[in-house]
Amino acid sequence: MRNIKLVIEYDGTNYVGWQRQPAHHGKSIQQELEKALACVLKQQYSLLGAGRTDAGVHALAQVANFHTTCNIPVEKLPIALNNLLPHDIRVRLASDMDENFHARFCAHSKTYRYHIVHGGPCSVFDERYAWQIFKKLDVEAMRRAATYFLGEHDFRNFSVLGSSVKGFVRNISRLELIEPGKTELCTHGNYGEPLLIEVSANGFLYKMVRLITASLVEVGRGRLDEEVLRAYIERTTPFHTMPPAPAKGLLLLRVDYGK
Amino acid sequence: MRNIKLVIEYDGTNYVGWQRQPAHHGKSIQQELEKALACVLKQQYSLLGAGRTDAGVHALAQVANFHTTCNIPVEKLPIALNNLLPHDIRVRLASDMDENFHARFCAHSKTYRYHIVHGGPCSVFDERYAWQIFKKLDVEAMRRAATYFLGEHDFRNFSVLGSSVKGFVRNISRLELIEPGKTELCTHGNYGEPLLIEVSANGFLYKMVRLITASLVEVGRGRLDEEVLRAYIERTTPFHTMPPAPAKGLLLLRVDYGK
Repeated sequence: MRNIKLVIEYDGTNYVGWQRQPAHHGKSIQQELEKALACVLKQQYSLLGAGRTDAGVHALAQVANFHTTCNIPVEKLPIALNNLLPHDIRVRLASDMDENFHARFCAHSKTYRYHIVHGGPCSVFDERYAWQIFKKLDVEAMRRAATYFLGEHDFRNFSVLGSSVKGFVRNISRLELIEPGKTELCTHGNYGEPLLIEVSANGFLYKMVRLITASLVEVGRGRLDEEVLRAYIERTTPFHTMPPAPAKGLLLLRVDYGK
Repeated sequence: MRNIKLVIEYDGTNYVGWQRQPAHHGKSIQQELEKALACVLKQQYSLLGAGRTDAGVHALAQVANFHTTCNIPVEKLPIALNNLLPHDIRVRLASDMDENFHARFCAHSKTYRYHIVHGGPCSVFDERYAWQIFKKLDVEAMRRAATYFLGEHDFRNFSVLGSSVKGFVRNISRLELIEPGKTELCTHGNYGEPLLIEVSANGFLYKMVRLITASLVEVGRGRLDEEVLRAYIERTTPFHTMPPAPAKGLLLLRVDYGK
């Protein structure tokens, strides 16, 4: 039995998210991929994804695997699938793995990037991929607050109750605020500044990245004190819930499997 | 009478082009802007655009002007218009000009950028903005061929007969092939190489940039000899017409008005 790993890129704008849904909810990435697989390999497969991305969330390198007895050369698979997939979903790589590989359970860490444009409007070309905040954010305060998230914490305050999960403790190994500067294209008009929030952890709770982002933005707006946020993270103060940052700014950057 | 200049950014994917069209042809950028202007200023205006972009062509800084007796503060105009405009059209700047300013007739030069990804697939995030060519192009041959276009030529071979024009002679002051290299995002899978073709001229004929691009790509594919292309440009050989490069790769980068 072969065990094939796929690396998948998608623009999530037009989808209800990664996970297969009842048809009337709309199209999911998983469902489009499974449809293409069935067509290429003449059999129904169930894809195991590294993680579920929400409606409107994008991915640069989502990972999924499936088991098959087919004998298609693995390097032909992306081409065959991409011929059938819609333009906003692309299989970037396919590789044969050993039988124990599991896209979700074997993942050591995942990295997400959240894209903000602040202090002015974003370009129309970023409209689908960025959260536009007209106020200029205090990035230094956000950077200080970001350090409080690092390490192992019970993140139940930074999740929305959804599917059942095994506990709320996760370990954030990296949370970085990157200011790439305006591109050379942003010379006409008062564009805002891009700000990227990159976060790696051994796992994420439902809406965790978008809630961390929302709380950092509250700090950056001067509406949430850094020490109060720290108390929320350490769960010494009852949490004042807030809406998560918009889905469209979020990108699953990569899934790491160690050596 | 005030004369107001607008700098406009748009993603042309969902439009029939800049120019107002009969309603059943679909929505145009000009029409969306005129509708928003009428709503803000309570009067019908006719916008004069610097140039017509085709269906599917994008703009970073299209320029248009209109005359008005309204007394709205000019810095308020982009905000008011953007509140009404669809997300893929944005007014970036508005400024009061002297009465003689005309977006088209006063333009000294226009610059377009054509975006190619070659030698592999493009990212789903470039899908709307790039021409994907699976073959690896010979960029050096294209660069040599590009120099033949420089200067004043009769470009009738590089235009499609559309609206009536005053002659076919145009002066290309710059035609550069830029290889920006893959972005840090293109690390998963065999992405192609980005190649930008930037061209500035005192004016462009209908589909001229897309035909120049198509002919350079033919050279890059090894299907058109550089010297044959030179003869086409110098009109010493009857031209073998070719389809223009796809609209979606084209971006109106800027319009220059001299001092």
